[in-house]
Amino acid sequence: MWILPPNMSAVDATIVIVTKYVRIFGEISGHPEKTHYSTREEVRRAGLHAHKQAGISGTAHEGADAIVLNGGYPDDCDYGDVVIYTGHGGQDNGKRQIAHQSLDDSGNAALVKSQLDGLLVRVIRGYEEESEYAPTNGYRYDGLFKVVRHWFKTRDDGFRVCQFRLVKHGSAADVLDSDIPHDSLQVADDDPTKSTGPAGRSTVTLNKVNRSAAVVRNVKKWHANRCQICGQSVDLPSGPSSDVAHIRALGAPHNGPDIEENALCLCPNDHRRFDNGALYILNDLRIVDALSGAVEGNLRIHSAHKVKVEYIQYHRSCWVDQ
Amino acid sequence: MWILPPNMSAVDATIVIVTKYVRIFGEISGHPEKTHYSTREEVRRAGLHAHKQAGISGTAHEGADAIVLNGGYPDDCDYGDVVIYTGHGGQDNGKRQIAHQSLDDSGNAALVKSQLDGLLVRVIRGYEEESEYAPTNGYRYDGLFKVVRHWFKTRDDGFRVCQFRLVKHGSAADVLDSDIPHDSLQVADDDPTKSTGPAGRSTVTLNKVNRSAAVVRNVKKWHANRCQICGQSVDLPSGPSSDVAHIRALGAPHNGPDIEENALCLCPNDHRRFDNGALYILNDLRIVDALSGAVEGNLRIHSAHKVKVEYIQYHRSCWVDQ
Repeated sequence: MWILPPNMSAVDATIVIVTKYVRIFGEISGHPEKTHYSTREEVRRAGLHAHKQAGISGTAHEGADAIVLNGGYPDDCDYGDVVIYTGHGGQDNGKRQIAHQSLDDSGNAALVKSQLDGLLVRVIRGYEEESEYAPTNGYRYDGLFKVVRHWFKTRDDGFRVCQFRLVKHGSAADVLDSDIPHDSLQVADDDPTKSTGPAGRSTVTLNKVNRSAAVVRNVKKWHANRCQICGQSVDLPSGPSSDVAHIRALGAPHNGPDIEENALCLCPNDHRRFDNGALYILNDLRIVDALSGAVEGNLRIHSAHKVKVEYIQYHRSCWVDQ
Repeated sequence: MWILPPNMSAVDATIVIVTKYVRIFGEISGHPEKTHYSTREEVRRAGLHAHKQAGISGTAHEGADAIVLNGGYPDDCDYGDVVIYTGHGGQDNGKRQIAHQSLDDSGNAALVKSQLDGLLVRVIRGYEEESEYAPTNGYRYDGLFKVVRHWFKTRDDGFRVCQFRLVKHGSAADVLDSDIPHDSLQVADDDPTKSTGPAGRSTVTLNKVNRSAAVVRNVKKWHANRCQICGQSVDLPSGPSSDVAHIRALGAPHNGPDIEENALCLCPNDHRRFDNGALYILNDLRIVDALSGAVEGNLRIHSAHKVKVEYIQYHRSCWVDQ
């Protein structure tokens, strides 16, 4: 039974109920994947997405619970189970880019929070998206995705936009994205369109993972598990430990190679900083703290480990306007 | 063409070729999942496992490429896509436990290395395993598993054994093990037998993940993303970041609850140390460096965050004999 405030009629109360948006992360009861909606307002009333126009549903504090893919940015790329999504901001009313995007925008900050907290994001595709995965009319809820990475891209018009790689939770692409090193005989395949077919059906086998166990082994061995940024290893009862990070990221749209020249031995803390643009490396291998702009040291090197400057430049281009 | 050593006949050379074991991580070409073998020697000749008797194939330096589940330890537990595997060592010839196990054993160290380097391990089940997933005769290659965790367990006879949780790569259990926080309406289900059916077919939906987004949000907020061990946050352009770690681990056989009282706010480095027994916490919240045995400080606390001592005790029991 509903208790109405004294100054409210039953009709008013109905309006209040359908207008209030309760942010829920994950599936919404009664709205399974592939449900179709005629309008953005229907999507909103279903509790799938907070807004009628904006692409990103979320706040910097809570994270993003949903996005709509509807052709708003030419920089978006839709591979089915992998989506490259462009952030919010910097457009005029005519959808022309007139300024850089930034993480100060609450929608962009919300997607970064979802990435860092591992929150799942509902993806809704709209009819205006130019992609084989878009519905021909209206809007369709297409399931839960992880935000696995974000970066900045300089467009041809000179403006910087923020981009996000989202991968469908539980899909073959998700399993591949977990970056399991492997040295069986299959060749790495960086074309994400090959990893999934239409309708989200996966067409790869699990063998086609794109990390080499030998790269991990060599890089850790050369540096004796010491971080090339801070010089420390994480010492466990089983011995020193470290991460092997790729400088130019694997997977679309970066498609960095899985070779030692594109890898760094890092502690987990500096790995997170590196992957999220808290530090970058100059061509002379000085390390810059991106938050203060100060040089914090030099990249530790080993004679056998030839890090390629082109990958360092690529990583830097994801975080600083050059 | 084969060049034989001068003192070797062609017959000898054949024996040499089938005897040499080349350690490959991942699938072995020509030996897909569900292939059946009559004997351990056939398994070895196929290149699936290095040994004819030992359960673990691998070295501390390279990692473990394969294990055989064949009823060697009553402490093993087989849930299909999730396997609790007991390490090597401490048994006499009659398979009676007469000493503690340790990570100095090269098989156990190999499995820890596979965990830390993310190497996939081939799982071979033998007819002597008492489980519905075991073959009725001979041996069967049952696919690639990840080592997601290790710990020690004190058996009823007082001996400590090392245990490993392995999860089938790409299975529903694997997706769940990635610990995505979620706050949709499904209830957490800690019974791993429910997560997979016979023949490795998954019977859960992806909604049944067992982490709460609210727990992650609260714990990070209370501690302002500062690590409860070292006091530092990992500062990113998007703001400070941290991990939320469970004290008593989620999932079988630990089945810790996903509540704030069982969670810590940690930096990624101390998260790795905590999960791998490099540090443990005393009941009075002093932190002990397990490698040196020295107290390294006190757990940082927040008035709203009531960490339960029983979970701290449980974590400690996984790493120190009490």
